[in-house]
Amino acid sequence: MGQQAIMAPLAGRRPPASGGPLGLALNRAPDAPPLYLQIRDSVRAAVLSGALGEGMRLPPERDLAAALGVNRTTITRAYGELAADGVVEARSGRGTVVSAVMGRGGGVAGEQEVAAWASADADTAWLLGLPPVGRGGLGSDPGWLRDMTGLASRDDVISFAAGTPAPELVPVQRLLTTLTDALAHSGGAGLLYGPVEGHDALREAIATRLTGRGCAVAPEEVLVLAGAMQGLSLVARALIEPGDEVVVEAPTFVGALQAFGAAGARLIGVPTDEAGLRVDALERVLARRRVRLIYVQPTCHNPMGATLSPQRRERLVALARRHAVPILEDDAYGELWHEGPDPLPLKALDRGGLILHLGTFSKTVAPGLRVGWLAAPPPVIARLALAKQVSDLTTNALGQLALTGFLTSGDYDRHLATVRGAYAARRAAMVAALAPLAGALAVSPSSQGGFYLWCRLAAGPHARLLAANASRVGVALLAGEAFYPPCTGGVAEGADYVRLSFAGNTPAVVGEGLERIAPILRRLPASASAIGVTRGLRPVV
Amino acid sequence: MGQQAIMAPLAGRRPPASGGPLGLALNRAPDAPPLYLQIRDSVRAAVLSGALGEGMRLPPERDLAAALGVNRTTITRAYGELAADGVVEARSGRGTVVSAVMGRGGGVAGEQEVAAWASADADTAWLLGLPPVGRGGLGSDPGWLRDMTGLASRDDVISFAAGTPAPELVPVQRLLTTLTDALAHSGGAGLLYGPVEGHDALREAIATRLTGRGCAVAPEEVLVLAGAMQGLSLVARALIEPGDEVVVEAPTFVGALQAFGAAGARLIGVPTDEAGLRVDALERVLARRRVRLIYVQPTCHNPMGATLSPQRRERLVALARRHAVPILEDDAYGELWHEGPDPLPLKALDRGGLILHLGTFSKTVAPGLRVGWLAAPPPVIARLALAKQVSDLTTNALGQLALTGFLTSGDYDRHLATVRGAYAARRAAMVAALAPLAGALAVSPSSQGGFYLWCRLAAGPHARLLAANASRVGVALLAGEAFYPPCTGGVAEGADYVRLSFAGNTPAVVGEGLERIAPILRRLPASASAIGVTRGLRPVV
Repeated sequence: MGQQAIMAPLAGRRPPASGGPLGLALNRAPDAPPLYLQIRDSVRAAVLSGALGEGMRLPPERDLAAALGVNRTTITRAYGELAADGVVEARSGRGTVVSAVMGRGGGVAGEQEVAAWASADADTAWLLGLPPVGRGGLGSDPGWLRDMTGLASRDDVISFAAGTPAPELVPVQRLLTTLTDALAHSGGAGLLYGPVEGHDALREAIATRLTGRGCAVAPEEVLVLAGAMQGLSLVARALIEPGDEVVVEAPTFVGALQAFGAAGARLIGVPTDEAGLRVDALERVLARRRVRLIYVQPTCHNPMGATLSPQRRERLVALARRHAVPILEDDAYGELWHEGPDPLPLKALDRGGLILHLGTFSKTVAPGLRVGWLAAPPPVIARLALAKQVSDLTTNALGQLALTGFLTSGDYDRHLATVRGAYAARRAAMVAALAPLAGALAVSPSSQGGFYLWCRLAAGPHARLLAANASRVGVALLAGEAFYPPCTGGVAEGADYVRLSFAGNTPAVVGEGLERIAPILRRLPASASAIGVTRGLRPVV
Repeated sequence: MGQQAIMAPLAGRRPPASGGPLGLALNRAPDAPPLYLQIRDSVRAAVLSGALGEGMRLPPERDLAAALGVNRTTITRAYGELAADGVVEARSGRGTVVSAVMGRGGGVAGEQEVAAWASADADTAWLLGLPPVGRGGLGSDPGWLRDMTGLASRDDVISFAAGTPAPELVPVQRLLTTLTDALAHSGGAGLLYGPVEGHDALREAIATRLTGRGCAVAPEEVLVLAGAMQGLSLVARALIEPGDEVVVEAPTFVGALQAFGAAGARLIGVPTDEAGLRVDALERVLARRRVRLIYVQPTCHNPMGATLSPQRRERLVALARRHAVPILEDDAYGELWHEGPDPLPLKALDRGGLILHLGTFSKTVAPGLRVGWLAAPPPVIARLALAKQVSDLTTNALGQLALTGFLTSGDYDRHLATVRGAYAARRAAMVAALAPLAGALAVSPSSQGGFYLWCRLAAGPHARLLAANASRVGVALLAGEAFYPPCTGGVAEGADYVRLSFAGNTPAVVGEGLERIAPILRRLPASASAIGVTRGLRPVV
């Protein structure tokens, strides 16, 4: 978008097929911010989003000034601000280029990269004819999550970004033991293709567990998945048609935004507060629009940590029933309530067919197992099994075998008790460590469990700048904008929030990480001067 | 299609959105087969394809006669033939209903099933609004493969259908040992999220192995996949746009037909013989059409077993280069050449960017690991990694860890030598056991390795009838039609072939399975009287 408009005069490539010049629709109203600040912020946003990659040249000042119809000194001043922030740098003989930002630069194969790669040889000429990124189920810019998973595996980075369990809490030995026992029983037959829907014994164990949590689910209503992300992808492809409207919480899980976005859904963000989804706002949406699906995380919401109140749960289900709109309940963190018994899943309120319940062992046990599940009416399971078959035939047997024994032996329950206590302690430690920074970074009171703190930047909408600078000192964290449905213009919502995960690091490491970013927090611009910021909640419809 | 036209007068449901009444476009030419045989064969085809499910009612004879404009005795005679074949049965008070066919009836959630399920309760009313099966990446009828994977796990079935390794050849203990060693080294960190592209060590091991097979592949050109099927699905979604033309061999791997079909590709089948893809026919296609991708299995082709000759390989790559069309090489069986050194992969002829090489450990080691790979130019890897991230984030760690050690220790090479010898022996045993049936079922001479024999029915295009009746005696096999791109009318190609896998069963079990189906083979109709049969190869364009 913005970067293509910026680069177009330089690169001479074709204009983008869709989307306006987001960052460079200069606002020339009398009360608008100075033009050089508008340009600075647009370029900065493009860099921080990864759209402008490391080493890419900005247009010469003279060219950009002409293209925008502004004075050349306006561009000089904007580039100077960007250089002072470390976003760009002057390189001799190359002009002004984008600086290195950790986690970027490896980058997605954008048009420029493909062109450079493909130009030399007839054998690669076909690459120039590839469909644009953004079509065909790719999503518009899901590179961010890929960066996160890459960053999370780097030893030199303290990651507050990754939503991973603590490595020392993964029950490696118990999983290996149950796997060894299962393979001793099955022999090689246990490692052949299993049913698309999942191993019978695991489907039964999951159904039994859900029944114990108040949900009347039969084994044939369970589809075993390669993680909850696969469930989102399959639901988006098999139950949603391009143009369908899908309600999501604002903010919500990034992977859900990607999966529904890639399927061509129109995302409607509904405000979410300390008691979860604002059901009153949802009611107004349902009254006015034809919604195909409501996606919600009722318990230990990612990124807010919020849990939907009992009153809102009842009202949500009643509303969905009245409008005949199914609910996709994402319960990834539902068993990671820190104290006392978990709230029952929303699925427990289902009379039989309105609620699709999505779960995973990625947060409670280990994400590398790649095992999750969806509980839904049999016709939905049949649909999704078709889509799963085309995607990957069946879920990996090693993970299924290890988890089946882990569940049926009672190990899972004992393990849950351990990790809940550990995460409660880690949350408390991070809250305590953040206290001295409260003037700059305020913890939202919503968190009651799960992995995350949702924190507001007193300095205003500078979360991406914080994240970029933190990455330079070896700290990964996520800017709040990532968790909101795409904005149609201006600066995205959530720009004054960051999500910090307390799950993956010991309190000592958390302390070190916060120490590294404390000076950056203090250096953040003191005013919320950036252009076009929408403060507060996003318009609902 | 056919069944909806048949059922429409009865069910009073809306007509299908697309597709003509395939089976019931009666041919009234003077030399056409009798109308009752045309009707019989259309209904039979609909049942055997699963389109008409167990227990579904056929229209009353009078109604169908009126709808088709034929004499009622024509329908009576057609239904009588179907009953004699066991395809339908008369049930008191219900009229004529479809009989049980093993592997069908559990079925895909078709409109009737959803309607029956959803009608009772407001909570399930939304199910009636689901998009039709066949949109959204589901493919039009991939239930068949799901049936296969389900059937393959049943103890009471002798499966010649499933493309699985022999369970006793799965190196369970070695995999467990390498996994245990790897986890002892990594601890719980080894079971967290890894990079979307796969573990670095596994990418390197795969690149090293490919380099040893003559392919210059760097680790960053390797994307680790949840099996080769995921590679097909990702390529179809990320590199193909709806309406793009994709060349496939005819016959070819069913999963490829599904993946490309679900992505909206137009499939162009090119004839394939004992020396592999008919490159002369491909040349004519490329001259006349704008092809986006050529999908080919050059070595130990599924289902034919054929291996592309060296001359054709050179010519294929030259043609693709001249027309700037990339080749997707599916090498799933490429290391299962039975005697002597394997032919090099087609990728060995790549000068750098024309050939995408797809591989898997599903056939050589164990499919339950769900680990495969794609080797391709970096911009393609970046594209596909984006799509993989939205699909399932990353490949399961247990399988990656087990295989990394298995590859780097030399275990994999030793294991390959063992399984090659074993499969050569099994192939020989099945060929010998088939010899007494040669008058009814002739083994194609194409097979030089892999898992399959491709056999021609002397009785003509009755492969689905054979498969249906074989399932009743506990034998699973695949009718040849499944391996051809969808036909636009008439009876599909491949109807006089079946694919038999020799890999999964011991010679004793193979003998028992063939004994069970021998009487069925002898009872097959002696003449090729079915309507609209296209014998020989399909028109290329």
